[in-house]
Amino acid sequence: MSDITDYAAAGVRGLAPYKPGKPVAELQREYGVADAIKLASNENPLGASPRAREAAAATLDEAGIYPDGGGFALRGRIADHHGVAAEQVTLGNGSSDPLAFAVEVFVTPGDEVVYSAHAFALYPLLTQAAGARGVEVPTTAGYGHDLEAMAAAITDRTRVVFVANPNNPTGTRVGASALRNFLERVPGHTLAVVDEAYFEYARDLDSDYPDASAWLAEFPNLLVTRTFSKLHGLAGLRVGYGLSSPAVADLLNRVRPPFNVNAPAQAAALAAMDDAEHLAASLEANREGMAQLEAGLRERGLDWIPSVGNFLTFDTGGDAGEVHEALLRQGVILRPMGEYGLPRHLRATIGRTADNERLLTALDRALAETGRR
Amino acid sequence: MSDITDYAAAGVRGLAPYKPGKPVAELQREYGVADAIKLASNENPLGASPRAREAAAATLDEAGIYPDGGGFALRGRIADHHGVAAEQVTLGNGSSDPLAFAVEVFVTPGDEVVYSAHAFALYPLLTQAAGARGVEVPTTAGYGHDLEAMAAAITDRTRVVFVANPNNPTGTRVGASALRNFLERVPGHTLAVVDEAYFEYARDLDSDYPDASAWLAEFPNLLVTRTFSKLHGLAGLRVGYGLSSPAVADLLNRVRPPFNVNAPAQAAALAAMDDAEHLAASLEANREGMAQLEAGLRERGLDWIPSVGNFLTFDTGGDAGEVHEALLRQGVILRPMGEYGLPRHLRATIGRTADNERLLTALDRALAETGRR
Repeated sequence: MSDITDYAAAGVRGLAPYKPGKPVAELQREYGVADAIKLASNENPLGASPRAREAAAATLDEAGIYPDGGGFALRGRIADHHGVAAEQVTLGNGSSDPLAFAVEVFVTPGDEVVYSAHAFALYPLLTQAAGARGVEVPTTAGYGHDLEAMAAAITDRTRVVFVANPNNPTGTRVGASALRNFLERVPGHTLAVVDEAYFEYARDLDSDYPDASAWLAEFPNLLVTRTFSKLHGLAGLRVGYGLSSPAVADLLNRVRPPFNVNAPAQAAALAAMDDAEHLAASLEANREGMAQLEAGLRERGLDWIPSVGNFLTFDTGGDAGEVHEALLRQGVILRPMGEYGLPRHLRATIGRTADNERLLTALDRALAETGRR
Repeated sequence: MSDITDYAAAGVRGLAPYKPGKPVAELQREYGVADAIKLASNENPLGASPRAREAAAATLDEAGIYPDGGGFALRGRIADHHGVAAEQVTLGNGSSDPLAFAVEVFVTPGDEVVYSAHAFALYPLLTQAAGARGVEVPTTAGYGHDLEAMAAAITDRTRVVFVANPNNPTGTRVGASALRNFLERVPGHTLAVVDEAYFEYARDLDSDYPDASAWLAEFPNLLVTRTFSKLHGLAGLRVGYGLSSPAVADLLNRVRPPFNVNAPAQAAALAAMDDAEHLAASLEANREGMAQLEAGLRERGLDWIPSVGNFLTFDTGGDAGEVHEALLRQGVILRPMGEYGLPRHLRATIGRTADNERLLTALDRALAETGRR
C-alpha cells in the first residue's frame, strides 16, 4: 500500500522538519541554572504597555465569541496611522502572516524569489515551501543588502523580492534614496516586499531611514509589513500587518484565515498604538542599552555589525558555538547565527541595563573559558 | 507596465474576494435594534470557563514574550487526553489551521479533493486556493454524507477527502461502523480528514457516534481535527488541533507558522480541558436548548435536519431570505444557508433558554410577516 507521506508536495518535503524551541524552563533544568535571561528573540525588555494588557484582559469576558474577522477597529486605526484606506491593510498573526500570504498569492512552483544573504530566515523557508527557486544575493562588505545586485537578480520569473529594512539578524538598513531607486527598478510583475518589523527602532536611531509606507500610492507592487511583536511588546499575542495597494490587499485577504488575529490580540494592538509614553520609554531603553552593549563590546575588543534594530550581532572572535555554550552555562541565552551564514557571530537582544551588564560579565568568562582572552 | 495582480495564482484569483463580516454593533445600527442576539456562529452560549479566562489573563503579564512555539504543555496535555504521543499533535489557530495545512502539504494544482455537498465551506475554499479540483459528492436523502459515493469518487489524483462528523451546517453524522468501513476503503495516497469540531456535542447526543482518534494507529493516512472554539467556548482565542500519525504531523508542522497559537490561547485551552464542570454544564444546556428548539419548530410545523451538534438547520417553508431579514429586524441573527446549497434553510445555534425563546417568538412574527403562517 502506498504511503501518504510520499505524496507531500516536493517543496514541503524539502523543508527542515519542525524542531520545537526549548522553553526557558527546560534550558534552565538542562544547564542547572535558576535565573536564565533570554536575549534571543528581540523582545521588548519593558514588555507590553499596561494599557495593552488591560485591553486584552477586558476581551476575555467574551472569549466564547469569535473575534471580529474583519478587524474593523484595528484596521481602521492602522489605516489612520499611515494615512491610507482600511482596504489597504491586511491583518496578520505577526507580520509573518502577510509575508506568507504574499508568497501564497504570487509564487507558484518554478517561480523565483529574490532575497539577500544573511536575511530573515522566513524568506527562504516560504520560498522552499512554495516549490519556488530562491535567489540569494550576496551582501555588501558590511553585511547590508546590495540593492543594486538584488535589482539585477530579478528576472521574468521573479514574483517576490524581499527587502528587510532593517534586516534581522544583521541590523543593517538601506537609506531612503537607495530604497526608492530600488523600488523604481522593480518591474510590475514582481511584488516588492519591504519588511519593517523593526521600523520604530530604526527611525529612532537613524535619520536617513525611510518609511516605505509613505510610497504606497506610487508603487502598486509594494507591500510593507509591520509588527506589534517588537517595539509594541506584543510578541506573546501575535499581531502584525501588511500595507499595500487595495488590489494587492484584496488578494492577500482572500488567503488570510478570517480569524487569524484573536480577540485579545486585536484589542491589545489598538491600545498599544495609543500608549505613546510606553513606546517612547521603550525607544529610550533601547538607545541606552545599545550604547551600553556597544561600549562593552568595544572594551572587550570584539567587532559587531552596526545595528539600527533592538539587537546587536557581534563577532565572537572565532567559531561562536563554544562561546554560545559557555554563555548558556551561565544562564544567558543568545541566538547563534550559523543558520544565517554567520558562524562566528551571536545575536544579542538589547535588554534592560542589568541584563546587558550580566551578558557582558558572562561574556568575559565565556571568552576566558574558550581561550579567546 | 505589467500589473502585479495579473500574476496572482489562478486558484487565488478564483477565490471570492474577502468580505469582512459585519460586527453585531453595526447590524444593530443598520436595523435599529439595541439588543440583538447572535445565534449564527455556533458559539457556546455559556462562554469560556472562568478557569480558562483566568489562565489566559495570567499570561498577559508576559505578553511581550513570544509564545511557546512548540506548545509543549498543551500538546502534551492533548496527547495524554487521546492516548497518543505529543509528536502526533499539530496545534492550530482553530481547527481550520490543520485543515489548511493538510491541503498545503498534500494538494498541488491539478490534484483532486473530495468532500460532501452541504459540507463546511472551508473545504471547497482551500481546494480552490490550492488550484485543485473539488469533487463534491451529493448527500444521502437526509443531507448526510454518502460515504459509499465518496469512497467511489476517490481516484489516483485524490489527495484529500474531507469527512465532517458531525457536519456543519447540517448537523448530520456518520456512525461508527460506516466511518470505519469508509476509512478502510480510502487508499494510501489519499489523506482521510475527519473534522470533529463538534465532537463532544455529538458524543453526548448519539451513542453510535465514533471517536476517529481511537483509530489513528490503524490508519497512517488519517487526520482527525478538533477545536476549542465550540464546546470549550474559546472561539475568541483561536485554538484547535490535528491528530495523525507522527509522520503526517511532522509534515503538517513543517508548514505550521511556529507561533500560530498565542500565549493566552494556549493557557486557556489547557485550563478549559480541566474544567469538567463547565464542559458538563455546557453539554446539558445544549441538550435542553436542542429539545426546546425542536419542540418549538414542531409546534410551528417547520421541518429541520436532525442534528447532533450545537445548532439546528431548519426549513423556513420557502426561500429563507425574507425570513432571515424579518428576524434581523427583530434583532435575531441566524445564518442563511444559500451558500451551502440550502436556500430554504436557516441555521440556528442553540442558545440559552431565553435566547431560544426569543428566536421562536421572533420566528412567529417573521412567518406571519412573510405570509407563511
